Amino acid sequence: MQQTKNSGSAPTTSSILDANAYQGRGADGTLVRRRADVLASAYRLFYREPVQLVRGSGVHLYDADGAEYLDAYNNVAAVGHAHPRVAAAVARQVATLTTHTRYLDAGLVGYAERLLATMPAALDRLVLTCTGSEANDLALRAACAVTGGTGVIVSEEAYHGNTALVTGVSPSLGPGAPRGEHVWRVPVREMAAAVAEALAEMSAAGVRPAALLVDTVLSSDGVHPDVDGLAAATTAVRAAGGVLIADEVQPGFARTGATFWGFERHGLDPELVTMGKPMGNGLPVAGLAGRRSVLDALAASTPYFNTFGGTHVSIAAASAVLDVIEDEQLQANAARVGHEFLTALREVAARRALVGEVRGAGLYLGVDLRAAPGVDEPGTTTAADVINLMRRRRVLTSVCGPHGSTLKVRPPLPFSSGDVDRFCTELDAVLGELEAAAG
Amino acid sequence: MQQTKNSGSAPTTSSILDANAYQGRGADGTLVRRRADVLASAYRLFYREPVQLVRGSGVHLYDADGAEYLDAYNNVAAVGHAHPRVAAAVARQVATLTTHTRYLDAGLVGYAERLLATMPAALDRLVLTCTGSEANDLALRAACAVTGGTGVIVSEEAYHGNTALVTGVSPSLGPGAPRGEHVWRVPVREMAAAVAEALAEMSAAGVRPAALLVDTVLSSDGVHPDVDGLAAATTAVRAAGGVLIADEVQPGFARTGATFWGFERHGLDPELVTMGKPMGNGLPVAGLAGRRSVLDALAASTPYFNTFGGTHVSIAAASAVLDVIEDEQLQANAARVGHEFLTALREVAARRALVGEVRGAGLYLGVDLRAAPGVDEPGTTTAADVINLMRRRRVLTSVCGPHGSTLKVRPPLPFSSGDVDRFCTELDAVLGELEAAAG
Repeated sequence: MQQTKNSGSAPTTSSILDANAYQGRGADGTLVRRRADVLASAYRLFYREPVQLVRGSGVHLYDADGAEYLDAYNNVAAVGHAHPRVAAAVARQVATLTTHTRYLDAGLVGYAERLLATMPAALDRLVLTCTGSEANDLALRAACAVTGGTGVIVSEEAYHGNTALVTGVSPSLGPGAPRGEHVWRVPVREMAAAVAEALAEMSAAGVRPAALLVDTVLSSDGVHPDVDGLAAATTAVRAAGGVLIADEVQPGFARTGATFWGFERHGLDPELVTMGKPMGNGLPVAGLAGRRSVLDALAASTPYFNTFGGTHVSIAAASAVLDVIEDEQLQANAARVGHEFLTALREVAARRALVGEVRGAGLYLGVDLRAAPGVDEPGTTTAADVINLMRRRRVLTSVCGPHGSTLKVRPPLPFSSGDVDRFCTELDAVLGELEAAAG
Repeated sequence: MQQTKNSGSAPTTSSILDANAYQGRGADGTLVRRRADVLASAYRLFYREPVQLVRGSGVHLYDADGAEYLDAYNNVAAVGHAHPRVAAAVARQVATLTTHTRYLDAGLVGYAERLLATMPAALDRLVLTCTGSEANDLALRAACAVTGGTGVIVSEEAYHGNTALVTGVSPSLGPGAPRGEHVWRVPVREMAAAVAEALAEMSAAGVRPAALLVDTVLSSDGVHPDVDGLAAATTAVRAAGGVLIADEVQPGFARTGATFWGFERHGLDPELVTMGKPMGNGLPVAGLAGRRSVLDALAASTPYFNTFGGTHVSIAAASAVLDVIEDEQLQANAARVGHEFLTALREVAARRALVGEVRGAGLYLGVDLRAAPGVDEPGTTTAADVINLMRRRRVLTSVCGPHGSTLKVRPPLPFSSGDVDRFCTELDAVLGELEAAAG
């Protein structure tokens, strides 16, 4: 199953989700063929019938024919597609100046102060990058520098990005992708015990631990926001000389509702925090916050400069995102609507024997699908069918988890109660169709 | 000298160029102190007295007091600071939609077709990333995948980016930065012979070559656009089973005047081409073009997806950049004004005994400075003095090369004959001051 699953942000290799082979006629079919002629074969398209989006607004996306879609997938446009305040801030800045961080910039300094103020006081320094991958790549090196260790513990189906280094700590990319030398994978369930065991194995192998690197909502493992044992695992890692890197690329920036950062929900105190996707609402903005001592350890050996990290236009976008989250109370909305969503999805699960467990925190939810009604085995094909049938009904989502059998539901944060109704109505109808077909 | 040089895009650790210790009073001083309290210690500021830029237009930058600077350094805003056509394209797109490449996008396909059309036909596939670092990181892995090799040859003072993998092939970062395991450094002079020797050493060590990775203007080595032997070196690498990666992050997109890509000036036919800085005129846009067979070899093992790579807003910026380069004939301008600049700088060199060799291609120029008038030793301190005195005269530039003794001159492409005069007049005056002080 490893080769055909779709996990986290990793590309699916499943032909079920892959429209590259789309044979549609007309403009779409022509565009798919032109696309395959110029983009590398690593590129994938969502859905058996691809979607050509041309406009977005709030939680809605529109295709080339003007049809409206409900977006239950895109966590990058977190404050809403084409949000007017973000758009205005970017438009103003790109017409004024955008350059790098070796000139003084009051905007950059003010943003760093504001962002760090959302975190525990111990996290007192920031590095701006362009992608979460770059942030995780840098965080791993900082962890190695400060600990003198090389051992890294990640979840079984982790995804932490696409550079060479972080590809090595992203087992969700499949067995073909090169694994890092000193990487231990731990299952999501019974994590504390598994981490203790990994540390014992490291010790036996003469490997010093550097870090526990964990997405605090366990997205690519299938969305497990209430995983037990992260605090105990952190204590054990720290006792063995390692540090905690909280990968907040997915849970961060208010998505989980209860807290602004995912690590706070678990009562964690990470030495390093990485962030990305929603940070600029679509502009390539990402970063690494950390304790000064940890970042200093890295700086002592390796100079670091990121030409596009922390530019004026990046900071304009990122600042506007914080403004909108605050002013539109999107964290409270994520908590309230997320709770309604979880409840409503569990009602669907109670009615539909193709649905297994439903999990969620705020507006990050996972819905396990079964291989057949009432059969508690991973429904890889079911999930692929569901997202393609949902797409026909103009509701966009995707899958995750070790078998690609979990619906990955993470809409823009302004998602409303009405949007929850629409999603659940369509999901219920699609599951009804599939159950009838199976019957 | 290794620890204190400033090369390529790498951060300087030289206190001479570092305003982090700036003790100025007033708003600037306060901002520098606030900055140091929130940004990681890896961050550096240019100049003994930092510059707080707030606006840009064409080749000019303006500080918080409204003072105008001539920009002879920033190659990211290549078509000019805050270019109205790029700004309008970005403003329009960010208010409309920006999302990822798993939905069909005619803009992305059209851009890929247009960009590949500027290259030899063998380079027929594109991957979009956010930074040149990501592009080089991916290119190295593609080279290893297609060749089965691990050996990489780079120039002695190469800089290829900031991820863990490419930090390892960036010796300009200094001896403290971790070097990759199978990395050979070759001097810029007599490169063909040095590459042959490196290949022989690899063979003796049982290391299979993967790639010659080279910035085709040798920026961080001190700007050597007319380096001999790149074609012969490529032939040797290829005969030994390796490929050529042309790092066009600095020379690409018309800067060198004679050709659109730096590798064309040398008659090279790279298997892989990486690009970045000027590609989006300040938006974080970068990419990797390559032969299909090479990129396929990577895709066979490692899935790749880049959330922020090739988004609608990135493509809007990148397309506008190509429009402006064409419509404003910036390649021809780079060739014409670059030639004037080279001539004018050589006139300064003829008058001023602090100047050694002057090199350049189009609007990428390097001016070697001497330790003392007429003394042909690297003028590290001279160079630092020159850029700080130039900054006082409101002309912005920086240094590069193994000793940080070469002026790095790479202005936005709309640089004019009048701008050349202004730069050379100020440089001549500054050199005159320094020569007088040297007695």
